[in-house]
Amino acid sequence: MERTIGIGLLGAGTVGGTLVRRLVGESEAIASKTGLTFDVRKVGVRDLSRPREFDVTEGMLTTEPTEVVDDPSVDIVVEVMGGLEPAGDLILAALEAGKPVITANKELIAARGPELIAAAERKGVPLLFEAAVGGGIPIIRPLSETLAGEHLERILGIVNGTTNYILSQMTEAGVTYEEALAEAKALGYAEPDPTADVSGADAASKAAILASLAFGTWVGPSDVYTEGIEAVDAMDIAFGADFGYVVKLIGTAERIGSGVNVRVHPAMVPVEHPLAGIRGATNAVFIEGPSIDSLLFSGPGAGGEPTATAVLGDVIDAARETLAGAQVAPRIRFSAADVVPFEQVPTRWYVRLLVDDKPGVLAKIAGAFGEAGVSIRSVWQEGVDSEAALIIVTHHAAEASQRRAVEAFESIPDVIEVASVIRVLGDRV
Amino acid sequence: MERTIGIGLLGAGTVGGTLVRRLVGESEAIASKTGLTFDVRKVGVRDLSRPREFDVTEGMLTTEPTEVVDDPSVDIVVEVMGGLEPAGDLILAALEAGKPVITANKELIAARGPELIAAAERKGVPLLFEAAVGGGIPIIRPLSETLAGEHLERILGIVNGTTNYILSQMTEAGVTYEEALAEAKALGYAEPDPTADVSGADAASKAAILASLAFGTWVGPSDVYTEGIEAVDAMDIAFGADFGYVVKLIGTAERIGSGVNVRVHPAMVPVEHPLAGIRGATNAVFIEGPSIDSLLFSGPGAGGEPTATAVLGDVIDAARETLAGAQVAPRIRFSAADVVPFEQVPTRWYVRLLVDDKPGVLAKIAGAFGEAGVSIRSVWQEGVDSEAALIIVTHHAAEASQRRAVEAFESIPDVIEVASVIRVLGDRV
Repeated sequence: MERTIGIGLLGAGTVGGTLVRRLVGESEAIASKTGLTFDVRKVGVRDLSRPREFDVTEGMLTTEPTEVVDDPSVDIVVEVMGGLEPAGDLILAALEAGKPVITANKELIAARGPELIAAAERKGVPLLFEAAVGGGIPIIRPLSETLAGEHLERILGIVNGTTNYILSQMTEAGVTYEEALAEAKALGYAEPDPTADVSGADAASKAAILASLAFGTWVGPSDVYTEGIEAVDAMDIAFGADFGYVVKLIGTAERIGSGVNVRVHPAMVPVEHPLAGIRGATNAVFIEGPSIDSLLFSGPGAGGEPTATAVLGDVIDAARETLAGAQVAPRIRFSAADVVPFEQVPTRWYVRLLVDDKPGVLAKIAGAFGEAGVSIRSVWQEGVDSEAALIIVTHHAAEASQRRAVEAFESIPDVIEVASVIRVLGDRV
Repeated sequence: MERTIGIGLLGAGTVGGTLVRRLVGESEAIASKTGLTFDVRKVGVRDLSRPREFDVTEGMLTTEPTEVVDDPSVDIVVEVMGGLEPAGDLILAALEAGKPVITANKELIAARGPELIAAAERKGVPLLFEAAVGGGIPIIRPLSETLAGEHLERILGIVNGTTNYILSQMTEAGVTYEEALAEAKALGYAEPDPTADVSGADAASKAAILASLAFGTWVGPSDVYTEGIEAVDAMDIAFGADFGYVVKLIGTAERIGSGVNVRVHPAMVPVEHPLAGIRGATNAVFIEGPSIDSLLFSGPGAGGEPTATAVLGDVIDAARETLAGAQVAPRIRFSAADVVPFEQVPTRWYVRLLVDDKPGVLAKIAGAFGEAGVSIRSVWQEGVDSEAALIIVTHHAAEASQRRAVEAFESIPDVIEVASVIRVLGDRV
């Protein structure tokens, strides 16, 4: 048990640098608690001329990524370089060489999970990715191990800190989307190009992974209906508050009959729901099942330190399994996904319309909802000169029916504009 | 991989019955997700004449507990009978026979953890107890695996649903302790003899286990300062609310210098703290560390179904490890505990005094605090006839100093009574 385990790192950014500092600086504490000693043998980087986030004078060799994978002194490969390539092929090569792999790469796992997991299973080595979703929040292991025996029904996640920070600022400081985004960039919560975050793409990868682990059926990112926060208007956040809702970007993975649906979109979350209180860059995952009722996990969803903690937990786990000399058995077997199109999923809508303030308008709008089979839960109207803002919250109906109703508004002459549409988080159906 | 795994059950109460129903009724779903097939071979009960919580017509044999352990067709032993004996010796016998053991028994793990864990390590078999703390909330595995590389600083837990239900009812419905307890009994949230819950003993076992796993240093239940909720007065809950606090029974595991302190007592929790919002019988664990900042886990802390989910997750994990044919490596190595006496721990106090309403009383009380080295944060006084309620909230000072100050009040003639003392949850120090 006491031999030193060689770590090969792919990527030398914030997470990689933090991990190296922890493996070196906390080696005694880790050894005393786990009985394991680690040594970072090689650090592979794409561009050898770029400066590193950490000091490599400790005897670590910065090198080409392929050399890390091939080095016989590297027992475990840790991939924190991100992106689909070369990360994907490097991980595959490491697994094929019989080396356990730890990765924080949600984009890659969402895109090539089945292939990589199959390679790991074939070789009987662990492929762990606790850091891929929820950063420092332990969520992958609880889902795939502790809750393996639960027939989970729905998972709701605030899994992107950038967008939650922006929406929180819009809610609490009353600023516009553009102001909140600028602030997020200034504070380092948003990238210079924030597209992956604000478009919902990052959250979609994470929601796909959560769905796959929870339901044991692999869902790819292309199966995820994705809508970002770019169109969220401060006015709707304010109206939402009046109605008892907080606007959040929610990733939802839900069983619908014998299939599953996964989606990411802004949602009006009832203030009394535990996710409504998740503020700033914090992430949270809310899990619903028949036996556990509901579980909430929350914590820091990103950042070098929390992510490094998750990676380190996986490294320790992989080392433990590897040293046990076992052919590691798969944690979850995935069956083919039966993805239910979003159009068939029951949703509830908040719709804000700009209408001519004259009699009969509401009757026409209510008529359009009725014809589409959507029943109205509440209506609120506020006149502004000759125009009026009309806000309607519907009961559950198929997403397609909600869309049909709203499309029908375009042929109502008194409707000036469908200003916004935000889904309302309901109980699981 | 495809062979059937024989389960031997010790105990046939609520959790045992639920587990059998799930293993039988959901066997297909479990097999499809995990690739594992389970068969409950024998059910050991202490009193064969008592009726079972479940139907044993499925070919299961209800028998003496020792026969379960000895049966060669039993691959994994699941102990859900509770109590120290015979559970402890049965588990030890199973481990010695090289069988993985799953238990939900927090009392036993807290009392005999090191001995049982050592036996499991010697035999290279898993001893798993996810259900022992937090019922259906995955907390043991995240602490001992995912967070193994984090230098955790403090854990705060609401780990007893009965007492949280009682305190929540006192807070929300304004009832007395006795009324809330009677209601909890009527609803099945409290046992006919609620001593283990209301005295804090149950929470102390769980806090000891959390501390041991978090800090890698074994803390026994006798090391835990324990104070229950029997003396919590509705008046202090009301005053607490005025000051922005919610009264909760909090289990605390904290690093103090190079040692640890573990304690369970009622605490005034600031309303903005995530634990303040944990209502009813829900449990929650709040984990603090330098890298993860803070994590919150919440969910159902007790009940047959959530507990069975946690047990089932452990059974699946143990089966996976066992089938891998490995000598299972220990998850955590425990070092000797350096338990810091509570007297030396910095605490903050809320003190309610009944005093004669005349000039100079406050000066004498403030003087007593000052002499003990405790500084006062806020004071509030309300006159009732010739008497006054005086409420003082202090800053951090050693628990011993707080006690010394309050003891000194007894020699102040104007102090009629020290009506109550409740510690105030502060930031980690």
